[in-house]
Amino acid sequence: MTDVMGTGQVTSDLASAYDAERAYELDRAHVFHSWSAQAEISPMVITRGRGSHVWDGAGRQYLDFSSQLVFTNLGHQHPRIVAAIQEQAGHLATVAPAFANGTRSEAARLIASHTPGDLDHVFFTNGGADANEHAVRMARLHTGRHKVLTTYRSYHGGTELAVNMTGDPRRWASDHGSTGTVHFFGPFLYRSSFHATTEAEECQRALAHLEQVVALEGPSTIAAIVLEAIPGTAGIMVPPPGYLAGVREICDRHGILLVADEVMSGFGRSGRWFAVEHAGVTPDLLTFAKGVNSGYVPLGGVAISDAVHATFAHRSYPGGLTYSGHPLACAAAVATIRTMEDEDVVGRAERLGAEVIGPGLRALADKHERIGEVRGTGAFWALELVSDRATREPLAPYGGSSPEMAAIVKGCQERGMLPFVNFNRIHVVPPLTTTDEEAREGLAVLDEALSATA
Amino acid sequence: MTDVMGTGQVTSDLASAYDAERAYELDRAHVFHSWSAQAEISPMVITRGRGSHVWDGAGRQYLDFSSQLVFTNLGHQHPRIVAAIQEQAGHLATVAPAFANGTRSEAARLIASHTPGDLDHVFFTNGGADANEHAVRMARLHTGRHKVLTTYRSYHGGTELAVNMTGDPRRWASDHGSTGTVHFFGPFLYRSSFHATTEAEECQRALAHLEQVVALEGPSTIAAIVLEAIPGTAGIMVPPPGYLAGVREICDRHGILLVADEVMSGFGRSGRWFAVEHAGVTPDLLTFAKGVNSGYVPLGGVAISDAVHATFAHRSYPGGLTYSGHPLACAAAVATIRTMEDEDVVGRAERLGAEVIGPGLRALADKHERIGEVRGTGAFWALELVSDRATREPLAPYGGSSPEMAAIVKGCQERGMLPFVNFNRIHVVPPLTTTDEEAREGLAVLDEALSATA
Repeated sequence: MTDVMGTGQVTSDLASAYDAERAYELDRAHVFHSWSAQAEISPMVITRGRGSHVWDGAGRQYLDFSSQLVFTNLGHQHPRIVAAIQEQAGHLATVAPAFANGTRSEAARLIASHTPGDLDHVFFTNGGADANEHAVRMARLHTGRHKVLTTYRSYHGGTELAVNMTGDPRRWASDHGSTGTVHFFGPFLYRSSFHATTEAEECQRALAHLEQVVALEGPSTIAAIVLEAIPGTAGIMVPPPGYLAGVREICDRHGILLVADEVMSGFGRSGRWFAVEHAGVTPDLLTFAKGVNSGYVPLGGVAISDAVHATFAHRSYPGGLTYSGHPLACAAAVATIRTMEDEDVVGRAERLGAEVIGPGLRALADKHERIGEVRGTGAFWALELVSDRATREPLAPYGGSSPEMAAIVKGCQERGMLPFVNFNRIHVVPPLTTTDEEAREGLAVLDEALSATA
Repeated sequence: MTDVMGTGQVTSDLASAYDAERAYELDRAHVFHSWSAQAEISPMVITRGRGSHVWDGAGRQYLDFSSQLVFTNLGHQHPRIVAAIQEQAGHLATVAPAFANGTRSEAARLIASHTPGDLDHVFFTNGGADANEHAVRMARLHTGRHKVLTTYRSYHGGTELAVNMTGDPRRWASDHGSTGTVHFFGPFLYRSSFHATTEAEECQRALAHLEQVVALEGPSTIAAIVLEAIPGTAGIMVPPPGYLAGVREICDRHGILLVADEVMSGFGRSGRWFAVEHAGVTPDLLTFAKGVNSGYVPLGGVAISDAVHATFAHRSYPGGLTYSGHPLACAAAVATIRTMEDEDVVGRAERLGAEVIGPGLRALADKHERIGEVRGTGAFWALELVSDRATREPLAPYGGSSPEMAAIVKGCQERGMLPFVNFNRIHVVPPLTTTDEEAREGLAVLDEALSATA
C-alpha cells in the first residue's frame, strides 16, 4: 500500500481496493448495477481520474466527454474540492438535519446567491430524484391540488414519483398511472409533434398545446408544471425563445406552480448559472444536484421561493431525510461554487460552446451525413444521428440501441474517449473546465469514429 | 482561519463556516429544515464532534444519546473512517455507477459477508428511503404483483412511495392512497391491538391478523411484506419470539417476498449485525443505510437474494441513480465495517444493552412512575412515558408533543445530554462505541431530568 495521503501512514482500509482485477471480480459477484441486465454487462474499472481524464484498470487514459453522468462539472480530482472534503471530514463529517451547521449554512447562502429571483431558501436532499419528489410535495401542499404536468421526453429521477414524472422509457416498468402525473409534449422542432416548420411556430404551437392540456385536465386540479429547463438525457432540446416565458404565463394565469428541474442543466452546464436565465424566467421551485458540487459527494436540493417558504412558516413541512444538508456534501458545494465564481467557470462554459464545441460539431455535421441535427449551448450538446437525413429515421429506435450506435461508441472508446449516449444520440457534455485543446481532441475522435463506422 | 488539516495551508473555502453566529443567521435565512415549521425553530448550531460528544456554538459539550438520527454508530470523527474518506477523496472522489470501482466492490463484498443467507448482491442508493423504493420495485417486478403490506407504527422514508409505506403521522400529508400500500398491525404487547396479555399470545394473534389481511387483500395481489426488523422511530418494539419466522412462513406459502427494513436496526444497532438474526430469519431483500458507514457520507442500499438477482440477470432492472455506489460513501463503509469487525463493535453493543443500558433503564422505571415500559436490545432502547401506569395514557398524544415531554427534553439538554424523542417516548440510542461510563452518565442525566420535572 502506497502512502497515498503523505501522512507516513502505510496501512489503509482501502489498500485492496486499488487492485483492478479484484475490483472487477468483486463487482461482478456483489454489485447490482443501475438500469442493467446484471449478467450482460462488463463494466470498465475506473481506477484514477484527473481533470478531464480517467484511467481504466489497464492504465489506459480516456478523455471524459460525458462528465461521468453529466456531473463532474469541474472535472476529476479538483484540488480545491478535494481539500474542502478532506478538511470537513477532519473537522466534522456529519450532523443531523435538525441542527444548524456552518458549512451547510454557507452552502445554502452561496446557492441562494446564484438562483434567480427570490429562490432564497434551500431544502437539501441526496440527489435529483428526491429533490423532484419534495418539490412536487411542496407544490401540492402550497396549492392544495394534486396533478403534476410533465413532458414526454424528460427524466426526473428513479424513485417512484420521480420516475412516473419521467417521460422516457425508464418510466414504463414502474408506471402504474397512480402518482398523479400527466404528460404533455414540449417543443422539439426537429421531431415536431405540432407539424411546425420554424422555431417560432413550434413555440407558439407547443404553448397552445399546453394551454389545451391544462384546460382539459382542469386548471384547478393542477399543482405544478415540472420542466427540465433544457431537457437533458432526453436530448438537450434547448427551448425556443419565448417558450419558458409562455409556460410561466400559463402557470400564473391558473395558479399553477412552475418547477424547473435544473439537476443536469444547472450550475453552469448551459453557459449560465441556471438554464432558466436564458429565458429570463424565475420558477417557483428549482431543483438541483450533480453540478452543485461536481458530484464529489451525493447532494441535491430544492431552491424555494418566498411564497412557498411562507406556506411552511407555521405549518410543518411533512418531509425530510436523514442526510439533508450533509456537511461533507455541503463542503464540496462551497468549494465548487467558490471555484466557479473565482475562475468564471460559467463564462468559460459559454465560450467553450460558442467558440469550440458548437462550431466543431457543426463542422462534423457538414462532413457526416448521419448527423441529422446539432443542438446545444455551453458544455451541453447533442448530435441527433439518423440513417436518412430526409426522413430523419433515427440511427437507433426510441428506447433502444443499434449495431451502428454501438460501433460508434466502441470507436470512441478505442480511441480513448468516453461519450455520453442515449438511443440515437451522442451527447457532448465534457467538464466545464475542459480546455479548448482537449475539446478539439475529443471532437477529432468523434470525427474518426464516425468516419470509421460510416 | 486555523490550520485545520495541519498542512500549513492557511486559507480555506470553509473558513467562514466556523463562525457559529453566522452559521445560525445563514441557517435561518437560507436553510429549509426537514419535518419543521420553518418560522418556529431555533436549531442548535453544532460546531464540533468527537466520539460520543458534540459541541454547540457556545462551546458547550453534549453527550449524544441520539447518535444524531440513530446513525453515528461509531460515534463522531472516528479516525479510521475519517482517514478512509480523506484517502478516497485524494485518490478518486467519484465515478459514475456504470463503471466498476475497487472501493465500491470492496464495500459490496464486506456488506454481503455480513448479511444473512444468500443476500449477496448489493444495489447501492443514497439513503434508506430510496433503498426501500427500489426494494419494492424489485419485489413487484419479481412477483408480477403490485400491493405492498407494511405495518402501522413504522417509518420507511420520506419520498412518495416510502412515505406512503410509512405507518406513522409523517405519512398523512402525502397519503393519496395511490401507491399500492396496505397497512396492518404488528405485534406490540404494551398497546396490543389484539387484546393479548402475553408475548406468546400477542405473537400468535398478530400472525393470525396478518394471515387474515393477506387472505382478504388477496395473496395473488401482494408483492411484498415490508417490515422494520425492529420498528425504530415508531417505538423500538422488539418482535416477540416466533413472529418474524411466522411472517416468513406466510410469505413463503403465498409467494410473497419478505423485505426487512434494517435502515435503523442494521449494522450492530440491535447487538447483532442485522436484527433479523435475533429471529434466525433470512428475508428476500434487506434495506440498509445509516450504520453502514455511520452516516459519514450519504449511503443506503438493498441486499438482494440470488433468486431476485436472477430475475434481473437478462432483463434490465428499470431503476438507478447518479450516485449509486459512490466511492466516497463506499470508502466510509469499508472503514466502518472493518472497524466493527476488528473491535467487535457488535458484541460491545450487545453487552452495553445487556449489562448497562437495560439494567439502568429498568432501575429508572423502578423509581419513576411515568415510565410505563422499558424495551430494547443492544444500543436500541425505548422508554414509554405515561401519565398513568394503570391506563397507560401516553405523556404526549400520538403524533404530537406535550409540555411534560418538552420539559424532560429541555432538562436533558440543560444537563448536557441530547436525547432522541418521539411523541411520548425517549429513545436511548447512543453510538455503539459509547463507554459504560458515558452510558451511565447519560442515564444519570435522564434520572435527574425525570426527577426535576416529576
